[in-house]
Amino acid sequence: MISPQIKSKLIAIVGRTNYDDSNAGRLVYSYDATPQFQSMPDAVIAPRSKEEISNILKICNAHHIPIVPRGSGTNLCAGTCPTEGGIVLLFKHMNQILEIDEENLTMTVQPGVITLDLIQAAEEKGLFYPPDPSSMKISTIGGNINENSGGLRGLKYGVTRDYVMALEIVLANGDIIRTGGKLAKDVAGYDLTRLFVGSEGTLGIITEATLKLIPAPETKKTVLALYQDIDSAAKSVSNIIAHKIIPTTLEFLDQPTLQVIEDFAKIGLPVHAKAVLLIEQDGSPETVERDIGIIEEICKKGNAVSVQTAQTEAEAENLRNARRAALSALARLKPTTILEDATVPRSEIAEMVKAINSIAEKHQITICTFGHAGDGNLHPTCTTDVRNSEEMERVEQAFEDIFKKAVELGGTITGEHGVGEMKAPYLELKIGEAGVAAMKAVKQAFDPNNILNPGKIFAKESRKRVVVAR
Amino acid sequence: MISPQIKSKLIAIVGRTNYDDSNAGRLVYSYDATPQFQSMPDAVIAPRSKEEISNILKICNAHHIPIVPRGSGTNLCAGTCPTEGGIVLLFKHMNQILEIDEENLTMTVQPGVITLDLIQAAEEKGLFYPPDPSSMKISTIGGNINENSGGLRGLKYGVTRDYVMALEIVLANGDIIRTGGKLAKDVAGYDLTRLFVGSEGTLGIITEATLKLIPAPETKKTVLALYQDIDSAAKSVSNIIAHKIIPTTLEFLDQPTLQVIEDFAKIGLPVHAKAVLLIEQDGSPETVERDIGIIEEICKKGNAVSVQTAQTEAEAENLRNARRAALSALARLKPTTILEDATVPRSEIAEMVKAINSIAEKHQITICTFGHAGDGNLHPTCTTDVRNSEEMERVEQAFEDIFKKAVELGGTITGEHGVGEMKAPYLELKIGEAGVAAMKAVKQAFDPNNILNPGKIFAKESRKRVVVAR
Repeated sequence: MISPQIKSKLIAIVGRTNYDDSNAGRLVYSYDATPQFQSMPDAVIAPRSKEEISNILKICNAHHIPIVPRGSGTNLCAGTCPTEGGIVLLFKHMNQILEIDEENLTMTVQPGVITLDLIQAAEEKGLFYPPDPSSMKISTIGGNINENSGGLRGLKYGVTRDYVMALEIVLANGDIIRTGGKLAKDVAGYDLTRLFVGSEGTLGIITEATLKLIPAPETKKTVLALYQDIDSAAKSVSNIIAHKIIPTTLEFLDQPTLQVIEDFAKIGLPVHAKAVLLIEQDGSPETVERDIGIIEEICKKGNAVSVQTAQTEAEAENLRNARRAALSALARLKPTTILEDATVPRSEIAEMVKAINSIAEKHQITICTFGHAGDGNLHPTCTTDVRNSEEMERVEQAFEDIFKKAVELGGTITGEHGVGEMKAPYLELKIGEAGVAAMKAVKQAFDPNNILNPGKIFAKESRKRVVVAR
Repeated sequence: MISPQIKSKLIAIVGRTNYDDSNAGRLVYSYDATPQFQSMPDAVIAPRSKEEISNILKICNAHHIPIVPRGSGTNLCAGTCPTEGGIVLLFKHMNQILEIDEENLTMTVQPGVITLDLIQAAEEKGLFYPPDPSSMKISTIGGNINENSGGLRGLKYGVTRDYVMALEIVLANGDIIRTGGKLAKDVAGYDLTRLFVGSEGTLGIITEATLKLIPAPETKKTVLALYQDIDSAAKSVSNIIAHKIIPTTLEFLDQPTLQVIEDFAKIGLPVHAKAVLLIEQDGSPETVERDIGIIEEICKKGNAVSVQTAQTEAEAENLRNARRAALSALARLKPTTILEDATVPRSEIAEMVKAINSIAEKHQITICTFGHAGDGNLHPTCTTDVRNSEEMERVEQAFEDIFKKAVELGGTITGEHGVGEMKAPYLELKIGEAGVAAMKAVKQAFDPNNILNPGKIFAKESRKRVVVAR
């Protein structure tokens, strides 16, 4: 609860128009892209500077008011749902690209910049920001950093973490710190920069970031390989890597996913294939030509029933967009779509996909699977209906089985979506009791009053993903 | 002090032969590669397993006994000098390559493996572990991880941090945790893996690591460009990057360094050049050929008085070895050699080198400068004599000026050597009071009794680098 006294202090900081505690305003920010989580914040605040954020945090810290930083809310782990009330912090006034430094190959941005906008700004200078989460058209870089977002190009280029060089952070007590720099090498104390990447807004509020850019690849090519069985597709993935080729993108889609994407996007996808690999390589023309040649050969020898290279960039872009539309397409099938991202070592992809299918069968639920085969990051997606509580119980059980299987295969409960509130009950599966205790100690060190995005990462109780709205 | 009771408990854990508290044994581990730091440990222990380490830590934690993990002691920040006594922990029994996984492109190692041995083991499989600190012939991977070591290939390939995928760690309380996995994507909670990389043995004892390997580049070429002024050399560095070429290696040596290396290595280096760039590119033959052609042209247009490509791999290897021998060569000049690694954004290299020269002049001391120009990581190196306390005071003052200048230019006090005890007084220069407080909170969270490598990273008092042996 925010008292009238605190409210007027907050308004004094951000101005009347940037403080909203109307029912309508609060309702808009009571949920994010994650199904089944909703909770009303007490107020929604849009600060204009780090100084304002510092002052807001001092008040929140003194009065133990929860504060939830939020980009576009595209996360799929209930990471920005204000499940304990308090303040939702928006970055709509802090959305500028501050600098593109062509000599040091860096870009400095405020957290509210849309991911695609900064990717395009880099491209205009012949530079490249590789992380490309499927939500990049609407996600913010602040959200990407807090979630350590991945994407389709992660196999070759890594994830958001690999491109964050420096951060400006407001800590829970209002202190403002700057970590890192335009520096490829910096070992001055603990690596707070990477600690904050992926910390889901629970350790501090990121107010500025310097990102690493790389020279744009000169060219790229896209291949679509169709298979009549999952094993052959997975075998091709392994064989490509075993040939010492790291493609930019190596995506997998199963038949049901293919069907719903085609129904949605209508671009002539081969809906009868049991498994599809979407493979992209970029680099110098010679390298791309040679790698794509080898990749085509590996796929053909590996029982692909069809191997086609996109003839134009437009055709390739259509394929990539179709893949990125997977969630939207699947979401049309049933009232509730639960998209997960259990991740395994690349070598275990086939076993994991088969395990997912048998788990779905065992619990009699529908799961489509697609994802980043090259880096083992799968997206088993369940289409269901939350109003059917008996089915939801089976869905929950199925995902628990999936997470256990992933960890058993040397994998993790989440590759790129984050833990948030949704997967908090499963964190211990991955890192054990002592690991959770170590992480809690870090949280306690940065946020002793537990005001920063409380309830996320760490579970209050085990295995209970679907919470009731407050 | 270790009481007889505790001593017998420790011997019960590791066996009589792995516990050494003789004067000779302790003396050997009373210093590392850092000049001017020496302090006797109470005992030197060589455990054989993580379980033994866990049991040792439980005893140390209960009795507040300092414990200093040590690889080969090649660090240059007094990071492994037992300045508060206690136990030095050796990894001579934990020095195995446990697995090379060619499907997932990973290598799993114990901390005592020599860096060059694992690089060669990767090469035998056609794979590549890029981090190559100059000490790699004798340094251990455990030391590299604890210091987040860099090297000559950092510009293109990054540093140790970028290749650590998973860690097994014994915490101060004896708990054993496993972080990460053979996973390109893993966002299950805070990134403890990267937090431990570069934590200088102050947060836990690393007992196993899974490293990322990449396909070995097919070929490489090496160019030596000579200049009569530093500005032109620095300009060439910027121009190469501005042409969207990221070489593997882009090293800078000033004239005095060149001279001493030639005196030491006698390979016919051009000792009259004022500045030299050693440039290497690797990759596919077409890419290397094209990049080296462009690089040669940029250097020639940029006032290089000579630009030569190494004709054979042996010739190139000679050049690389000469560069790696810089510290050894400089160490012959005077009784004391202090090698620093102030680091700036690449664009500030020329300004920083000139500042170093004028600071050396101002304080009337000798500083040679070489380093990784491509990533802004410079090694200003002072040859002096510690017995001359008046000169040492000026040396100290000069390095303080150098660190201040580096930070002023957007740089850092240490690019790849670590803070240790030597640079602890300067940490606040880089990250400010609030930053130090945040790092101390992390330390407190993991090691409340301050047993893990105490006295490192955080200074007891400001600016006093040369300590007296206890």
